Amino acid sequence: MSVHPAPVEAYVREHARRTLGELQDLLRIPSISTLPAHRADMDRALDFLEARLRDAGCEHIERLVSPRHPNGMPVLYADWLHAPGAPTVLFYGHYDVQPPDPLNEWLTPPFEPTVRDGNLVARGAADDKGQMYAHIKGVEALRAVSGKLPVNVRFLIEGEEEVGGETIEHVVRQQLGKLACDCVVVSDTAMFAPGMPSLDVGLRGMVYAEIEMRGAERDLHSGLYGGVAPNPFEALARVITGLKGQDGKILIPGFYDRVVPPAAAELAAWKRLPFSEQQYRQEEVRAPALTGETGYSVFERTWSRPTLDVHGMPGGFTGPGSKTVIPARASAKISMRLVPNQQPAEIYASFSEAVKKLTPTGLVSSVHLWNTADPIVVDTSNRFVRAGVEALKATFGGEPVFVRSGGSVPVVALFTTVLKAPVVMMGFGLPDDGLHSPNEKFAVENFYGGIRAVADFLQRLAPK
Amino acid sequence: MSVHPAPVEAYVREHARRTLGELQDLLRIPSISTLPAHRADMDRALDFLEARLRDAGCEHIERLVSPRHPNGMPVLYADWLHAPGAPTVLFYGHYDVQPPDPLNEWLTPPFEPTVRDGNLVARGAADDKGQMYAHIKGVEALRAVSGKLPVNVRFLIEGEEEVGGETIEHVVRQQLGKLACDCVVVSDTAMFAPGMPSLDVGLRGMVYAEIEMRGAERDLHSGLYGGVAPNPFEALARVITGLKGQDGKILIPGFYDRVVPPAAAELAAWKRLPFSEQQYRQEEVRAPALTGETGYSVFERTWSRPTLDVHGMPGGFTGPGSKTVIPARASAKISMRLVPNQQPAEIYASFSEAVKKLTPTGLVSSVHLWNTADPIVVDTSNRFVRAGVEALKATFGGEPVFVRSGGSVPVVALFTTVLKAPVVMMGFGLPDDGLHSPNEKFAVENFYGGIRAVADFLQRLAPK
Repeated sequence: MSVHPAPVEAYVREHARRTLGELQDLLRIPSISTLPAHRADMDRALDFLEARLRDAGCEHIERLVSPRHPNGMPVLYADWLHAPGAPTVLFYGHYDVQPPDPLNEWLTPPFEPTVRDGNLVARGAADDKGQMYAHIKGVEALRAVSGKLPVNVRFLIEGEEEVGGETIEHVVRQQLGKLACDCVVVSDTAMFAPGMPSLDVGLRGMVYAEIEMRGAERDLHSGLYGGVAPNPFEALARVITGLKGQDGKILIPGFYDRVVPPAAAELAAWKRLPFSEQQYRQEEVRAPALTGETGYSVFERTWSRPTLDVHGMPGGFTGPGSKTVIPARASAKISMRLVPNQQPAEIYASFSEAVKKLTPTGLVSSVHLWNTADPIVVDTSNRFVRAGVEALKATFGGEPVFVRSGGSVPVVALFTTVLKAPVVMMGFGLPDDGLHSPNEKFAVENFYGGIRAVADFLQRLAPK
Repeated sequence: MSVHPAPVEAYVREHARRTLGELQDLLRIPSISTLPAHRADMDRALDFLEARLRDAGCEHIERLVSPRHPNGMPVLYADWLHAPGAPTVLFYGHYDVQPPDPLNEWLTPPFEPTVRDGNLVARGAADDKGQMYAHIKGVEALRAVSGKLPVNVRFLIEGEEEVGGETIEHVVRQQLGKLACDCVVVSDTAMFAPGMPSLDVGLRGMVYAEIEMRGAERDLHSGLYGGVAPNPFEALARVITGLKGQDGKILIPGFYDRVVPPAAAELAAWKRLPFSEQQYRQEEVRAPALTGETGYSVFERTWSRPTLDVHGMPGGFTGPGSKTVIPARASAKISMRLVPNQQPAEIYASFSEAVKKLTPTGLVSSVHLWNTADPIVVDTSNRFVRAGVEALKATFGGEPVFVRSGGSVPVVALFTTVLKAPVVMMGFGLPDDGLHSPNEKFAVENFYGGIRAVADFLQRLAPK
């Protein structure tokens, strides 16, 4: 069953080319929040989105900043509140993107969006510009064909998602009245498979830290001092192998103490998902072998088991060729993904303590916390989640499945705890979209599907 | 006893300001051989040295290149061969310098030479421009005051020392006739202490390699794939800890098999050297503790024991902030210092084999060899080494000591084996000169001392 599908369907079809062109314009703006040089691009992305929200009929368009972070990236707010007595839906998305490096692995430039094999290829195509823009276009379509919306709508589009910024949290806590809503829609996740629409009901949390290891006070020549000088990279290697065993087990004392395994029914449902581990390895992960804890399935290892990864080890000599330096210091960027009910603050404390204990004689380590996110599990029994299921079914066909995601969307925990609103995670992406990787893509078909699903979802929430 | 000291002494004093100014001009040229962008600076350094060699009375000035490395950095040749029947001395030095990074740790810019506390501070001040330039000025002084030289002299000044380039080897092998000599003088090492002139009679060899570790074919998001994706940094950490134990022992099978310990007399002489381990740690290494193999002295650990160091680990995300990437690949730049009679080719083969065995499931490693150097020990019984001892004693005062150096000067092995000439390693630097580090320095007094020692040395070789 779909609700009034024909007019929206026709509108989306009629405006397909313009809509895709607009998204391409947005993707051309390199709004990279981690690189200060792109500050002006952040503003350009905001200008663009303001204009499109206005086109969609939104009002009260405003750039919200936190007084505690005056130089933070503004959160874009807009609303349409002319459906008294009807529920209010808050759409969340983000306009910032990851850096595109390594640049040389892109087949086409990351900020020159290109349609290839039915996919729009660009940095941010799926994460999250394409999915966030589907919200705006879904509202636009519904309002265009009906002259109004069946429910009240708010938009909250942030610019620090990829950098773990705090502006969104401060803004949400400050503007509780302005953000009152009955549910939050987040589209920053992926479907389980093409043609298998999914609702995410679990997200892993995160602690992202950086260990700095300091040996001598200055860089030393490895010929003259090799044999006596402490080597920060060697020390970091010992810390890393001390934090995580070859069997994938994290060796930080107490690390697993609070881990709550999924219910038997949830584990059983995961077993029914169509999945070939061999195909997943060969076509998606594309690695010689999968790694991780023995005794746990791929779904458990990526959705319901915590893990630890090293992302980069700055310091020393990294150019081509050889330089015989024992660097004074080196770092390791390390993150841990957390699952219910691990607590980031507690895990960070245990991690810091473990690093201290593992630091070899001759060196001093310090740990810097970059950011954290709470792990969450969503209650699936409310009407908004059910409306999401129906909208996805009507739009994409196939019975939607409840899955989890290994990634972290810190705001989902924020909305859950501060706005007290259920979060409906309708992801329009696909598992191989290559978020944060070269050649990130978003299926053009899923972009249009996302627009139709948003319009359908809102219609289902209209008061009877 | 010094030989005809007065005129040379007076000349050096009279021309002190000009001489130091010339060295500063040379140090202003950022002739960094590891960075292709500095190619034009290499040419400027060559132009400068050609002019100064001509001023010193040299002839046959020529830039030698290897047909096998047409884009290699030329080796500068010059000679003065008007002392028939007298020995021929070949002076070796290099005009290339290390990159100056980390730039922010320099108190004054690395290529704006500054005299501070009696030291000339600049990249290359001691390694090797200042020491090499003392050769040229020593020859100039002696010729200026005598109208001629008592021996024949050749200069060979290369531009790929810091990059481990092969041009010098090819040039030496091709130009055997042109380079015929009775001894080679190399000043690219340090005195044991201020006022304690030293002759280096041992150098460690080296194998410098880079391990590339490849996991998935593309960068992956650590949220979505953390728990199954192979992590190249984690794998490198396991390889590094598998190559070297926490006790400093290198765990590569067979690694120590050919190591020849120093003779009992040599070890006994090292014990007599004035040395405070605590002071060395606090004032020179400046680290919380010294590291390395237990049961060996600092001299043994840095001069006669092999070791292994990590210099940099390129790959992944190294910018400020957090990026949740599991990189497709990462590298580790690793060098091993070798001692007599370890063989670089054999060690490299064992290292590669060990890396292969230590590579965890899910990843593929490959090893690239950047460069090697043979370890050497010099015979101290010939007249050139004895003349060196006398020249240092006359110039710097104090009884010269025979020491070794932990560093590698690959050409020393080349001269020994190809030119069959004894190598006299007269170092004018000091142990805390900070080679390859920020704020590299060369004592101005040692620069002038080097000039006088070179002139003195040549006079001692005059036929009776």
